[in-house]
Order: sequence, then C-alpha cells, then structure tokens
Amino acid sequence: MEGDISDMNRPQMYLFGCTLKSDKREYKVDVDDDETEQQLSLKAACLGAEAEDKFHTVELEALTYDGKATKVPLVVLKPSVLPSMSLGGFEITPPVTFRLLSGSGPIHISGQHFVSVRDSDNGE
Amino acid sequence: MEGDISDMNRPQMYLFGCTLKSDKREYKVDVDDDETEQQLSLKAACLGAEAEDKFHTVELEALTYDGKATKVPLVVLKPSVLPSMSLGGFEITPPVTFRLLSGSGPIHISGQHFVSVRDSDNGE
Amino acid sequence: MEGDISDMNRPQMYLFGCTLKSDKREYKVDVDDDETEQQLSLKAACLGAEAEDKFHTVELEALTYDGKATKVPLVVLKPSVLPSMSLGGFEITPPVTFRLLSGSGPIHISGQHFVSVRDSDNGE
Amino acid sequence: MEGDISDMNRPQMYLFGCTLKSDKREYKVDVDDDETEQQLSLKAACLGAEAEDKFHTVELEALTYDGKATKVPLVVLKPSVLPSMSLGGFEITPPVTFRLLSGSGPIHISGQHFVSVRDSDNGE
Amino acid sequence: MEGDISDMNRPQMYLFGCTLKSDKREYKVDVDDDETEQQLSLKAACLGAEAEDKFHTVELEALTYDGKATKVPLVVLKPSVLPSMSLGGFEITPPVTFRLLSGSGPIHISGQHFVSVRDSDNGE
Repeated sequence: MEGDISDMNRPQMYLFGCTLKSDKREYKVDVDDDETEQQLSLKAACLGAEAEDKFHTVELEALTYDGKATKVPLVVLKPSVLPSMSLGGFEITPPVTFRLLSGSGPIHISGQHFVSVRDSDNGE
Repeated sequence: MEGDISDMNRPQMYLFGCTLKSDKREYKVDVDDDETEQQLSLKAACLGAEAEDKFHTVELEALTYDGKATKVPLVVLKPSVLPSMSLGGFEITPPVTFRLLSGSGPIHISGQHFVSVRDSDNGE
Repeated sequence: MEGDISDMNRPQMYLFGCTLKSDKREYKVDVDDDETEQQLSLKAACLGAEAEDKFHTVELEALTYDGKATKVPLVVLKPSVLPSMSLGGFEITPPVTFRLLSGSGPIHISGQHFVSVRDSDNGE
Repeated sequence: MEGDISDMNRPQMYLFGCTLKSDKREYKVDVDDDETEQQLSLKAACLGAEAEDKFHTVELEALTYDGKATKVPLVVLKPSVLPSMSLGGFEITPPVTFRLLSGSGPIHISGQHFVSVRDSDNGE
Repeated sequence: MEGDISDMNRPQMYLFGCTLKSDKREYKVDVDDDETEQQLSLKAACLGAEAEDKFHTVELEALTYDGKATKVPLVVLKPSVLPSMSLGGFEITPPVTFRLLSGSGPIHISGQHFVSVRDSDNGE
C-alpha cells in the first residue's frame, strides 16, 4: 500500500524564469558551488504583450559533450506570427546562458529548476 | 505476469482547470494542509471563443529553488494569431498563482493535478 | 542480455479517437465495470478539412482530486489560424466527457487508451 | 559507478518515416511475424515545400482496446497556416495505417520505431 | 533519505546544436568510435531572423530498424507563418544527417546529446 502512495510522491518542482530585453540581453544560470547539482527543464517561451512586431531570437549557450561551449538559436518569436511556444522540456545542465540575438524584447523563458545536494559521499 | 499487469496500472489522473478573466484576474492553488503533497502538470492554455482580439498574457508565480517567490509570463495568446497552446507538461508545486497580465480573457489553463498523502511515517 | 531485450518491450498502445460535430456535440468515455482501469493520454486535436472558419472550442469534463466534476476548455482551433494542435499527452482517467462548446465541427481528438485488469488480488 | 554509466545507456532509436501523396494515399505499418514486437512513436508531421495551399488531413487507423479497428484524423496542415506540427510522441502499436484524407501532399510523418524480439521464452 | 536525494540526481545534459544554410546544407553526427554510445534528443528548430520568407525544409537521414538508411522531411518552417517549432524530444541514434532540402537558411536545430562509454565489459 505504501508502494502505491510513494508512486504519487513527486519531487518538489521549482519554477525557473528569466526575461531578456534590450537593456538586459543576457541571462546566465551559473553553478553556485560544487555541493549542488542543477538542471533546467525549459518549458515555454513567450513575448511580452508590449514587444515590437519583429523577430525575437533567443540563443542558448551551454556545454557540448566534449566539454566545449556551443551556441545555438533556440526559438524565434514574432507577435503577429508566433507570440509563444512550448519548449517541450528542453533539459540542460548549467552553466547556461540565454542571449537575445534579435529584437528588443521583452521575451520570457520559463521552466523547471532541479537542484540537489551532490551525492558525493554516497557509498553505492 | 503480475509484473506486466502492474506496468499497465497507472495512477488516477485528476483534472485541473482554471479560468482567468477581467473580473477574476488571479487564481491561486494553495497547499491545504501539511498532510498532502500536491503537484500540477500544466498541459494546455486556450482562449475563450468570445475573447477580444488582443494579446492575453498569463503569468505564473511560484517558488524558486532558493525559496523565493518569482513571477514569469508563461504564455501569450491572441485569437487571430495563436488561440491555443500546448504547455507540454509544465510541472509545478503549489503554492502557485496564475495571473492575467494583459487582455480581458477568458483564458483557460488545464492540466493534471497530483495529490498524495504525505509519506511522513514511511520508515524507508 | 534479457534485461536489454525487456527494456525494449513496451505495452500495447491502443488508439483512442472521437469526433465532435453539430449533431453530436458530446462524447463520453465511461468506466465499463469495476474490473478494469482505464486511462486516456490525449495527443492531438484537429479540425475536419470541411469545418467552417470559426473558433471551435472543446471542453473537457472530468473529476478533480476532491471528487467533484469540473469542466475546462481544452483547445480552441480555427481553420485559418490553427487547424491542429498537439495535446502533448494529456493524461486523464475516465469518466471523461468531451464537449463542443463553439463551432459546428467536425473536430477530432486522438490519443492513446490504456486499459488494464484491476490489480485487486495483487498480494503486494 | 557502473550504475551511473548504465543510466546513460539508452536503447537504439530507429527512424520511422512515411510520405503520403496523391498517387500513394495510404501507408501501412504491418506486423511482420509473431516473433517481433513493434511500436511507433510519432514525432512530427510536415508538408512538402511544393504542396498546394490546401488543407491536408492525415487519418490514423489502428486498433482500439477492444480489438476493433478505428479511424481518426490525426493532423491537418496547410502551407500558409501551419506547415509542420509536432506530434509529441504519439505511441501506437502496429498494424497502423496512415491515410491522406484531403489534399494531394506530399505530407511526411516521422517518428521513432521500436522493434524487439518477443520475450516469449523469458522465464520470469 | 539517500533515496530521495538520488531521485533528484539527474544525468548531465549536453547541448546539441547545428545550423544549415545555403553554403552548408548538410550536417552529419557520426559515431566517433566503438567505445561510446550516442543519442540525440531533438528539441527545437528555428529559422534565423535574417532568413528569406520561403519554406525551409529539413530532412533527417538515419537508420531504420532493418538497418537501411532512410530519409524523411522533419520540419518545414517559413518566417511569416511558422518561424520556430518544438520537436518534442525526437530521439535518434547516430549516424544521423540533417539536410536542408528547400530554402537557404539559416535554420537551427537544437537538442540534447547523450554520450556514454559503451558498457561492453559490464558483467551483468
């Protein structure tokens, strides 16, 4: 019976949100210290209702599997064409930088933030 | 054989729904008591068929991993451009507030609601 | 090696589909009996190619976690704006009713249907 | 440590793709033999760049949980409105038929294909 | 208690990104050697803000379950209609080739990249 109950127990889901605009074109999620492990799961991007009717491009910068930093445009939104988009759970490990490549925003990125104490002394 | 059957057993999925409009711009999902754990998985947002042809912005307010409340616009819809959007399963732990930032609605948020009795005396 | 093989074994996935239109505005998925457990995972909604260029709203009615029936609009489609939408796997336990609130359809909802014999005599 | 490594081991993911057009309006994924189990996870649909500016409707035919064949339109695309759509991982067990109901295509369905040797002599 | 903590431990998620354009219409993700296993999970596609207002088609080439290479168009984007699309986690095992079939780009594909040392001498 307890088994059934714990299937329903789910980890605490924290909100992640950042806003990019002309005077703050970059947002970095850094690793605070060696004791915690973080992960982002990006869920949605949307423009502010006041954004200009231009293409707004958000670039993601993070590490590739061979340890190099890479940059790739993630989403392009335009108020009159596509003002919001689901990101479907794009999981990425910080350090991560979000950068507004075109448009003056605001554009908002939201998602979940997982943080855990590093399992360093777990004897398994 | 029982193993196969229980793979098919899935937890009860409860419906979550809320509606934001000009005379009810905010909807809060609170934690009732300490005995239950809740989680929302947001699945879709859509405008009412009668909504004005303006940008409708819904903001999400919830806790970040360091225990602070944060606000981030989640979705922007407009009848003639994007009347509905999948939210792809945005999981968030209450307390959560949905707030209509622009437009007069109605705009509807739907999803799943997980509720469990807290596993406090689970000796594992 | 068997472990690898069984990772690949996946449960049978049954198709769920329903169509709402002016002379059949409601579709109910009921629970047949106490012996089976059912779950729907809604995947997509689309208009018929012959649908009028109006907003078509589909409402979902199901149970909330506190045992009450609730209704929430799930998706709004319009041929010239958004003729189809992914529902991203909206999981819901019957009894569930789909209802066409606006427009005359046809509008189609598709997804997966999970059915299992209730695990009532599982001694675990 | 091995535990961490095997968490990263993932099954081989095979590509599934089919194209529907005026002279090939149907595509069937059949079950080859009794020795293999198959499953499709449909991920995206898109029109060919040369498709006419009409509504293109793709119907899915597969089995319902009570063993009957059912048909449901899955997606409607039109070049000037919605030329592509994510299907979000629509999992379905063959036999499955994709059928072009309206428009002359080409329209492409892509996804993942899982195939395994049936675990018939697995003593568990 | 350790169980709860390790539930929160998640594997490192590496960023995958590639850009297709008129002078680089193809991008191949190859298998480096026999010692590593790779998998891509494609998450989003978007046009560059400077892309021409034409249909941009990206084709995916990879292996089918019977070991043959197959090609299928994955996504069609056009700046004035659909400048970005979620790919919802399209998982595919390299070797994979992305090819720009129509339009001159740039068009960007982003996702996650899983790499692991092959578990060849794992005695299980």
